Amino acid sequence: MSLENNKNLRLMANAIRFLSADAIEKSKSGHPGMPLGMADVATVLFSKFIKINPSAPKWFDRDRFVLSAGHGSMLMYSLLYLLGYKDIDIEDIKNFRQLGAKTAGHPEYGHLAGIDMTTGPLGQGISSAVGMALAERMLNAKFGDKLCNHYTYVINGDGCLMEGISEEAISLAGHLRLNKLIVLWDNNNITIDGTVDKANSTDQIKRFQAVGWNTIEIDGHNFEEIEKAILKAQKSDKPTLIACKTTIGFGAPTKCGTSKCHGSPLGAEEIEAMRKNLGWTSAPFEIPADVLSAWRTAGKRNEQAYEKWSKEAKAAGKEFDDIINNRLPKNWDKELLALEEKCIAEKTKVATRKASQMCLEKIVPAIPQIVGGSADLAASNLTFVEGLKTITKDDYHGNNVMYGIREHAMGAMMNGMALHGGVLPYGGTFFVFSDYLRPAQRLAALMGLRVIYVLTHDSIGVGEDGPTHQPIEHLASYRAMPNINVFRPCDVVETAEAWRLAIENEHTPSILALSRQGLPMLRTSAKENLTAKGGYIISPCKGKRQATLIATGSEVSLAVEAQATLKEEGINVAVVSMPCTELFDAQPISYQEEVLGSSPRIAIEAASKFGWEKYVGLNGDIIGMDGFGASGPAEELYKYFGITKEEIIDSVKNCLGK
Amino acid sequence: MSLENNKNLRLMANAIRFLSADAIEKSKSGHPGMPLGMADVATVLFSKFIKINPSAPKWFDRDRFVLSAGHGSMLMYSLLYLLGYKDIDIEDIKNFRQLGAKTAGHPEYGHLAGIDMTTGPLGQGISSAVGMALAERMLNAKFGDKLCNHYTYVINGDGCLMEGISEEAISLAGHLRLNKLIVLWDNNNITIDGTVDKANSTDQIKRFQAVGWNTIEIDGHNFEEIEKAILKAQKSDKPTLIACKTTIGFGAPTKCGTSKCHGSPLGAEEIEAMRKNLGWTSAPFEIPADVLSAWRTAGKRNEQAYEKWSKEAKAAGKEFDDIINNRLPKNWDKELLALEEKCIAEKTKVATRKASQMCLEKIVPAIPQIVGGSADLAASNLTFVEGLKTITKDDYHGNNVMYGIREHAMGAMMNGMALHGGVLPYGGTFFVFSDYLRPAQRLAALMGLRVIYVLTHDSIGVGEDGPTHQPIEHLASYRAMPNINVFRPCDVVETAEAWRLAIENEHTPSILALSRQGLPMLRTSAKENLTAKGGYIISPCKGKRQATLIATGSEVSLAVEAQATLKEEGINVAVVSMPCTELFDAQPISYQEEVLGSSPRIAIEAASKFGWEKYVGLNGDIIGMDGFGASGPAEELYKYFGITKEEIIDSVKNCLGK
Repeated sequence: MSLENNKNLRLMANAIRFLSADAIEKSKSGHPGMPLGMADVATVLFSKFIKINPSAPKWFDRDRFVLSAGHGSMLMYSLLYLLGYKDIDIEDIKNFRQLGAKTAGHPEYGHLAGIDMTTGPLGQGISSAVGMALAERMLNAKFGDKLCNHYTYVINGDGCLMEGISEEAISLAGHLRLNKLIVLWDNNNITIDGTVDKANSTDQIKRFQAVGWNTIEIDGHNFEEIEKAILKAQKSDKPTLIACKTTIGFGAPTKCGTSKCHGSPLGAEEIEAMRKNLGWTSAPFEIPADVLSAWRTAGKRNEQAYEKWSKEAKAAGKEFDDIINNRLPKNWDKELLALEEKCIAEKTKVATRKASQMCLEKIVPAIPQIVGGSADLAASNLTFVEGLKTITKDDYHGNNVMYGIREHAMGAMMNGMALHGGVLPYGGTFFVFSDYLRPAQRLAALMGLRVIYVLTHDSIGVGEDGPTHQPIEHLASYRAMPNINVFRPCDVVETAEAWRLAIENEHTPSILALSRQGLPMLRTSAKENLTAKGGYIISPCKGKRQATLIATGSEVSLAVEAQATLKEEGINVAVVSMPCTELFDAQPISYQEEVLGSSPRIAIEAASKFGWEKYVGLNGDIIGMDGFGASGPAEELYKYFGITKEEIIDSVKNCLGK
Repeated sequence: MSLENNKNLRLMANAIRFLSADAIEKSKSGHPGMPLGMADVATVLFSKFIKINPSAPKWFDRDRFVLSAGHGSMLMYSLLYLLGYKDIDIEDIKNFRQLGAKTAGHPEYGHLAGIDMTTGPLGQGISSAVGMALAERMLNAKFGDKLCNHYTYVINGDGCLMEGISEEAISLAGHLRLNKLIVLWDNNNITIDGTVDKANSTDQIKRFQAVGWNTIEIDGHNFEEIEKAILKAQKSDKPTLIACKTTIGFGAPTKCGTSKCHGSPLGAEEIEAMRKNLGWTSAPFEIPADVLSAWRTAGKRNEQAYEKWSKEAKAAGKEFDDIINNRLPKNWDKELLALEEKCIAEKTKVATRKASQMCLEKIVPAIPQIVGGSADLAASNLTFVEGLKTITKDDYHGNNVMYGIREHAMGAMMNGMALHGGVLPYGGTFFVFSDYLRPAQRLAALMGLRVIYVLTHDSIGVGEDGPTHQPIEHLASYRAMPNINVFRPCDVVETAEAWRLAIENEHTPSILALSRQGLPMLRTSAKENLTAKGGYIISPCKGKRQATLIATGSEVSLAVEAQATLKEEGINVAVVSMPCTELFDAQPISYQEEVLGSSPRIAIEAASKFGWEKYVGLNGDIIGMDGFGASGPAEELYKYFGITKEEIIDSVKNCLGK
């Protein structure tokens, strides 16, 4: 590499630095430290290596890039602008962090072309990148090098490495030998509260080696070292960590190297001094023509590669096109519908986790994008079926991931797979342990990803394992979260309906909360997907309705039993099954009122009562849990906690003043 | 060690094996694999090393023991019975996993003497043990070897090591050189879904070394190796991992070494064969007299040490006794009350996170047990005050922990500290990142621990950082969780009141959800702790009440502003501040009705609306968030999302049909 070349790279990097510093200064908010510190690394990566085409931001075979240290968002926006993405112009840069701007505080997937993932919550980016890299290898195994063969690059800081999720993800990446994953660690020894050594003394190199990674250590301001390291990483047979020793806030004369430049604007004076220090004479938001031109030229590097790929993709035909565009095969749910009919005819009584497995036996062969898995509970979650093949480091031609006891990484990796495209992931654990993956679920909801969580053992019905294993507050806690559908089906038909909705809902993650214990068939027809309405009368009232029982999952059959006994006593009630409150809330008010009726309403759910007033009002009743569960046989627990037919009957009579 | 000795140890270990296998068989539920596999290690640890006194289970200077692999609960129950704990007899063993039994499915703190922590959710035990070991060193620094000088032992399996939280915890344990922490890893190469190598190929020895641990590898069925390893670990200047190579289900002839014996009863036939295999002739639940006697003798090993400590403790006087019994100094909140009065007089307008810091300036000097900290956000959470001193590996004489970017470990370590006793921990992060520590919070609630979470940046008021950093569903999600108080104070007085309640509530964890932005002083008197009632009329209605505005935190002042404008228009409304719904729900119905009134009710909270129907009913209104937040200045966001004085006024008029 010539000195001349180095000088150009330095100018290109400084363009990132000043765009970042000036935008953050103008918005009076943001994090300059990382964009300034990693500008040199990013310049080499984006001008010499990364396979992207700013004119085709969604190019399927592009390299993926995840800014895991999402607070350094101005690095990303600077790069996208400099490379010539049409979705961003200098006005967007000037509008950094303003309401409605594409240049949001943290990079947001879907708001701006070229952002491969929403980041900000630390550890999520690097972990989702493992999912992207896995999806890439799986599709490569399926379609070959010409159609799918790209790298996944990550830039992250110490924060991502200290978060536990990163250990889960890197250990699985090492185990699966995802050698096209390259992580560039901004090793600047600074976190918000000071130097890293105040809170951490991990030997990161040794740590990554312990989980099967290739490691390289470089000076992150030396262009030659950066280039050599990436070249070496590309040829590794393992995932690679490049530890880039950098100075946070590089170029800012008094604040660089300290936490002062991490999360606040540098200030006019410091930026002025930085201009002198780096010899940058351009006004804010002005990039010298030759520097901009160098960047724009770099942005066009892969145009030929893109054209070549486009031809290959066209030649590959409809199947490939459908898969990479996440289109489902026509009538994919035909067998599922047949299953519903069959189970109605046979009055199949099974746990809904088992019902889910029966559904998967039909879904897996029907949808080529499906990728299953579980966090070491496949035999309990019943997520594994014939037709699934587990992926190993030696053979990526499969569609099942053994995530190990890594719920959080599973959640993040499913996000990464869905973001990558060409795969449709589902993953299982116990419902109570959804707490472990909640930060990843929230990002799935925020990004609007089609990921499906198979969360079994959904109540005190867990039985003997006791309160640590019995979800109580989980249903309510997800109902409070925006843009996630929580399904709690009551029988095989509702389970199948929930699966159909989860798979067809392209922009909303779904939770299937499934029972451990057997549940009777309640549905008598599968002609209409009634779960799609969220709630419906599953057992109508004979005679004038005096009360309405609203139940979900395993409690619907209890309500139906109570209804029969009440009928014998001359009390007419209707039973509403409410498998998905989110979808019910989306129905017209008139439908909701018709279903819920105007007589007293009683909700029954073996979970926290919190939130049910929304449907039963202040004059209804809620039969549920007031505290944590207990250890004992499931049937005894239901009695102990008063979630029984008798309690329902008493409640109705009480509401009716009888 | 003589062969005779080995034979005795084997018999003692087999007593654990048969108690475990038979109890699990009888209850038709449980996990025999681990108790059988780790019986030899546990026998050496409990008969030769561990400093406990079955007659004084709460002995403050006892060694702590955490069965991090909580599913192996029969190991614990067997040990406690064999050692002679009076709280457990053979009937309890026979009642394993039955409703109401002390021998719950997983070990439950507080249900049975000798259980130092509730475990089951993987990774929590080993991480809380780090908190215990830290508390021990802190109190040792304060009181010296004679009063506090003990080990913390952990038994865990592969599950705990694969969970990300374990990396957070072990890296901090290594950083702080907690050399009295000894982890015994049941290295049996089996998880639920099969052999470990299907999902993991981590070099655990190298991994622990990378975070500064001492490591030892042994045959977990060789008594001499076990003994030597523990002796060596006790002398280490670092925390120690002892990797115990074991056979899961040791002794079960056909199922040992496979996942078949992990989580199901062995079956009568297998147990029969195991009796032959190990030469065990006793009937189920019968322990040969000499074996029981050997165990009971082992249980008495530390009686003299206990007597000696008791004398020292008595001599140490009241301060020591108060601290280890978690008693607060008399009038500890005197300065806090004075602060409230002062701020009322000065009409102090500050963010509630700042108010919290002002409170901490009074609390820290007043309570010797207090231990502060933050997950690398001290400067934002405002958790650090004068009088705090950060603990380092070279000096444990402090009361502040720099947790690093390890929210989950912080949560678990706070649990461990509270369980250890003698310390009262609080810890901070952004409210949105409470998701990362939720599994630990749930255990705190289940165990009823006094831990305090300082969760700042509590709404869209976060502003420019955008939706990844703005909590929406978090308030509701914690209100749904049993036994945790969520405080969202509106000014300095409520913040101080919340702190007082959090500190005085010995058996309930507390969340303080605090604003980033400044909030005016609304309270005019601090004579009564009104926050203790959960909700109260903060600004009464002048004239006949036509509507009630119910708000929390930063929205209370909005409601008060709306009230004033409505008054000008001749509409009389009352404003209720509701800083803690849990405490409000605990008030008499008559009080609740008086506060909420019978006229239309409108709730205002910059968060998910979910759950507010509980107070406003079906005819009220809720002004809140329907989806995720956005990036932009906070004031603009409030306008954009319609959480404004004007919206409140419109809502009142609408409810009144005007």
